[in-house]
Amino acid sequence: MIFGKEIQFQTKGFSDIVNISDQVRDIRNESGITNGIISISVIGSTASVTTIEYEPSLVEDMQELLEKLASVNMVSRHSKTWGDDNGFSHLRASLMGPSITVPINKSKMVLGTWQQIIVIDHDNRPRNRKIFVQIVGD
Amino acid sequence: MIFGKEIQFQTKGFSDIVNISDQVRDIRNESGITNGIISISVIGSTASVTTIEYEPSLVEDMQELLEKLASVNMVSRHSKTWGDDNGFSHLRASLMGPSITVPINKSKMVLGTWQQIIVIDHDNRPRNRKIFVQIVGD
Amino acid sequence: MIFGKEIQFQTKGFSDIVNISDQVRDIRNESGITNGIISISVIGSTASVTTIEYEPSLVEDMQELLEKLASVNMVSRHSKTWGDDNGFSHLRASLMGPSITVPINKSKMVLGTWQQIIVIDHDNRPRNRKIFVQIVGD
Repeated sequence: MIFGKEIQFQTKGFSDIVNISDQVRDIRNESGITNGIISISVIGSTASVTTIEYEPSLVEDMQELLEKLASVNMVSRHSKTWGDDNGFSHLRASLMGPSITVPINKSKMVLGTWQQIIVIDHDNRPRNRKIFVQIVGD
Repeated sequence: MIFGKEIQFQTKGFSDIVNISDQVRDIRNESGITNGIISISVIGSTASVTTIEYEPSLVEDMQELLEKLASVNMVSRHSKTWGDDNGFSHLRASLMGPSITVPINKSKMVLGTWQQIIVIDHDNRPRNRKIFVQIVGD
Repeated sequence: MIFGKEIQFQTKGFSDIVNISDQVRDIRNESGITNGIISISVIGSTASVTTIEYEPSLVEDMQELLEKLASVNMVSRHSKTWGDDNGFSHLRASLMGPSITVPINKSKMVLGTWQQIIVIDHDNRPRNRKIFVQIVGD
């Protein structure tokens, strides 16, 4: 059995971190799939999917780490060539990766208590961001 | 066909690197699935899954790189707020990601000779760590 | 339904970035699978899979970031022990991860317009690199 759905939301960009755990859980519920794999993938090349303990101070720590790794103010060939100033966004996105998988066991997503599914939108402007959630199982 | 199993083991924390290739292979054998995808996911927000050539000197190099990226001694808002001193653990975990997928082809995991499946436990104390291995295939 | 295929190509190493989107799309077409998940995994411990806007200036920016994170000239225990000088290759590969998943919806891979599937070969020499593409769906 395959069940897929797109989710959409607004972000502020600049590695804005959005907790999508509830939306993914809703899609699981709607699917009725009791055992399988959920693939969560971002559409676009300036955002990432991962998990985190979603609480405000850690969200800021994560953004600070990303600023250290690839600064908003970095000089990039991409920004120079295309004039869109988001070279850092692309680099952060490719480094962290566009997708994760989460198991479903006995109708529940297998995650820790303090582990939320997040999208990090690295782009340098507010975006309407789209994520595709695909479930394979039975 | 879906086959899933949790594996558990003790870690020392501080980006302790554990080779779980044999356990994952055993679960594949037990499943009898000949072609498909294995999803290997960590339960919790302070550990990661990836692959590496698992040999002692590279294990130390990896730990040194993680120390460079997000030091045990870093000042983090998370540690200050919650007093648990493991901000660096969360950052390392979210950066590296909680899951990978490995294909199964003709009853074998498709991996290189020097490529082992590892869990890196970034937490700042010994842990009883749980991993969920979910196989989808036929 | 399961459909899998290996793809092979030559790389230059040193984080050479190869766009494999067309090959993955061809495998999807050949499979006839209309809805499901594609798992794209590298065979070996010195390469990674991710997505990027594949254009020459960003490719160079990405290589520069990787050089900053784990330099070709770094001193590594792995290189010292084994004499193969590719400690940095292993570290880049494990940090970025060996696999991603891409959904298939209505016979199409769900990706952004500027989002290509890439392999980064971090090894320190030209390689004949192998990738396994496994599709699960119906």
